[in-house]
Amino acid sequence: MIGMTQSPLPIIGIVRSRYADAGQVPIQAQLNRDEPGVIEFRDEYRDGLDGLGGFDYAWLITWLHLAPDDGGTVPPIRQTPFLLRGQQRTVGMFACRTPWRVNPIGLSLIRIVQVAEQSVRFAGVDVIDGTPVLDLKPYVARFDQPEGKPRCGWYDEIAIADHSKPAELPAT
Amino acid sequence: MIGMTQSPLPIIGIVRSRYADAGQVPIQAQLNRDEPGVIEFRDEYRDGLDGLGGFDYAWLITWLHLAPDDGGTVPPIRQTPFLLRGQQRTVGMFACRTPWRVNPIGLSLIRIVQVAEQSVRFAGVDVIDGTPVLDLKPYVARFDQPEGKPRCGWYDEIAIADHSKPAELPAT
Repeated sequence: MIGMTQSPLPIIGIVRSRYADAGQVPIQAQLNRDEPGVIEFRDEYRDGLDGLGGFDYAWLITWLHLAPDDGGTVPPIRQTPFLLRGQQRTVGMFACRTPWRVNPIGLSLIRIVQVAEQSVRFAGVDVIDGTPVLDLKPYVARFDQPEGKPRCGWYDEIAIADHSKPAELPAT
Repeated sequence: MIGMTQSPLPIIGIVRSRYADAGQVPIQAQLNRDEPGVIEFRDEYRDGLDGLGGFDYAWLITWLHLAPDDGGTVPPIRQTPFLLRGQQRTVGMFACRTPWRVNPIGLSLIRIVQVAEQSVRFAGVDVIDGTPVLDLKPYVARFDQPEGKPRCGWYDEIAIADHSKPAELPAT
């Protein structure tokens, strides 16, 4: 179990995945929705999983400790997201899902496969092995699903392939 | 603009809402989806909004600084959520959306109404006035919407009224 030093907040556990290199990790859990991963919880939080087995999905909230900037200084306010590198187009940090943020908080929609005593097996991996977990919230459609078909900005204008990885997208 | 002291992480801005009392705030943005609120951004982050106007929804990520516990000590690992008070039923912290968490990080699905130079008008208020904002991420259906109709645990077993507020739900 890693220490707190990689996260400025207390962590509830860590993610185990097969990725050691951030450049090789698919950019979103739902673009890599079949790959298995595990969340290992700290001893003191294991009872927090009681009832989670009744949910199909959850929000995995992480501290992206290997993001290009770790919160110590200010990352670029306008950036070229991985998916816009081919176009060399920049957008504001709050209009994209870049991991390079003021607070590098990761939000991953994961499918719950099995809830064990002190761990959760899930599908949908988009973080490297050892990523600190700040929180896990059950997905509740009533709270988390907008009505209709919402406009999704520049994401609606591009093709997004499953399993997209930074290292395989055009370089900046 | 409030200081950093109410959040352990740098804040990108604050929420303006009409609520001063946490007990009076609707428990989820999508249960109060028509009420307007405003996010006021810090000067240095205003350019981060570039491109956000093309999105209908966003994830408002906040530090719930007035949650019963502010992260200093450990909140109850099993709790009776507001919506289960009538049944006096407890569930694990990670199987509910209680604000009383190891890290009181709020996740609110808001509808973007207008993106201005340094602020965002939105609809869907579930936080009190002055709540520190840690991040804002655009809602991207491809990333944020699960397939089919996912099981949502104990939330599927109860009636959830729009505009539910802690102070109006059964007492513990």
